[in-house]
Amino acid sequence: LSQESSFIQSLRALATDAAARGFMDDAAVLAIGGTNIVLTHDMIAEGVHFLATDPPADVAWKLVAVNLSDLAAKGARPLGVLMGYALIGDAGWDAAFVAGLKAVLAHFQVPLLGGDTVSLAPGAARVFGLTAIGEAPATGAPSRSGAQVGDALFVTGTIGDAGAGLAIAQGDPGDAAMLAAYRRPVPLLTEGQALAPYVHAMMDVSDGLLLDSARMAEASGLALAIDLGAVPLSGPWRAARGEDRAARLAAATAGDDYQLLFAAPADSALPVPATRIGIFSPGAGLSLGDADGAIPLPDRLGYLHG
Amino acid sequence: LSQESSFIQSLRALATDAAARGFMDDAAVLAIGGTNIVLTHDMIAEGVHFLATDPPADVAWKLVAVNLSDLAAKGARPLGVLMGYALIGDAGWDAAFVAGLKAVLAHFQVPLLGGDTVSLAPGAARVFGLTAIGEAPATGAPSRSGAQVGDALFVTGTIGDAGAGLAIAQGDPGDAAMLAAYRRPVPLLTEGQALAPYVHAMMDVSDGLLLDSARMAEASGLALAIDLGAVPLSGPWRAARGEDRAARLAAATAGDDYQLLFAAPADSALPVPATRIGIFSPGAGLSLGDADGAIPLPDRLGYLHG
Repeated sequence: LSQESSFIQSLRALATDAAARGFMDDAAVLAIGGTNIVLTHDMIAEGVHFLATDPPADVAWKLVAVNLSDLAAKGARPLGVLMGYALIGDAGWDAAFVAGLKAVLAHFQVPLLGGDTVSLAPGAARVFGLTAIGEAPATGAPSRSGAQVGDALFVTGTIGDAGAGLAIAQGDPGDAAMLAAYRRPVPLLTEGQALAPYVHAMMDVSDGLLLDSARMAEASGLALAIDLGAVPLSGPWRAARGEDRAARLAAATAGDDYQLLFAAPADSALPVPATRIGIFSPGAGLSLGDADGAIPLPDRLGYLHG
Repeated sequence: LSQESSFIQSLRALATDAAARGFMDDAAVLAIGGTNIVLTHDMIAEGVHFLATDPPADVAWKLVAVNLSDLAAKGARPLGVLMGYALIGDAGWDAAFVAGLKAVLAHFQVPLLGGDTVSLAPGAARVFGLTAIGEAPATGAPSRSGAQVGDALFVTGTIGDAGAGLAIAQGDPGDAAMLAAYRRPVPLLTEGQALAPYVHAMMDVSDGLLLDSARMAEASGLALAIDLGAVPLSGPWRAARGEDRAARLAAATAGDDYQLLFAAPADSALPVPATRIGIFSPGAGLSLGDADGAIPLPDRLGYLHG
């Protein structure tokens, strides 16, 4: 275990309240006064979640978007955000961040409710936190752990674009749409709210399709078989990277997609376009294949922090 | 304006939602499903809010306590917290922090609902954020801005002990109780809940009695006269520092007290012991006096970050 994984394990022993969902979900769900409140807090740090060269307005966008994506995965309607901001003595950067923050909050119609600032030494790593609060749908906030035997695994949109966009941000040639997928991910709020009543389990794809799928299977206590050939790839991805096994494995193990991943009966009439990519069965573990047969799991299923 | 103050001003332009209370209060108050949710997010950083030599368990205590104190100031009952934690490669320190976190959460019976971790470079400044969620009292969450002409200003407990405790933590000789006041402040949750129906305005004393009092007067659009001679001092403080004007000014401009400061009718029968230290009147500005007459305001009314 990495030091970060060990630390999270030690915190998990403190997650004794049902609302914490054992720290195994995208968000906490707190029942209060007949309503279920969904709460999430994600941090982003320079060099880990964004590049020093990323425009400050895009960093503000990402900070808000990754947290709203956790609300989307629970089918929640956003009510507001609180921000924790570390100042490192770069007023121009900070002003551009605030302009970007204003834009992203207006775009998603989410109010800034409060927060705090702290002044760190000039040159310290930029690190920001955001808490997002939402209201769960009347039908309840889907967990990661509700997949059932015979459910299909579905994913919205396409996979891998943000990972290719990261390479472009680092200097590779490439498509503007893929760069935007990395710098300006779009939380699927409307889609999450529409899907919530139809799904048995739902989460967002943040660390990689295979890694996140394996987490849903483990949380649900089931085995999961994924058809790598069914993983949806964008036109720009196929043009740049192709669609052979290696290309598909690269897409399925890249992070930052922020698509919705969900388990639902295989014959569901879904309210949102999605691609069926797998099937849950009794047992445990992730297996991978395509039309040519079984595929060994790669060493790395996704992006593991720390 | 300091850079941090300018940044906060620029964020204030984004606080257009009523629940944000213009970023002029201890917390946001969000109406949802017939309940008012109180939300606060405070960060603490090494070298700013705590010392590198402070025991990790005390840092965990302070992170939770300063946020619960904001809930106390709104009369709220805590429902849970989410934590943002930066790892800097010191597993022993982190383990001691988690043990302290477990203890403080158990002490105040508040569940950890979620959060996030991020790995920074070894040697980076430690910085932590906490979001606390509470339920406002049925009578409403007092604001900072509700003081009325003729209200008295009251404060609970004694003032200055934490400031003296900071000096002790930095090497001065001194009393263990004052060191504890600095390292382990106690959020006055029960007192805040009891006081909420009686007060016109309430906040906690975090940055200094005079500074925070001036903020309440400004938010309420009133003038405020404080009797420095009435400011309550502890036995250890009087023994160590005396109680002349200079000593009283030192106590009233030190931070980290986390007592409750509130405006209420002067003849109120209060449910909690508190000391009457001032009176609100029409106008603007803070004035200071004692039995010997008027006292010029000190240049520094409290602790201003940045």
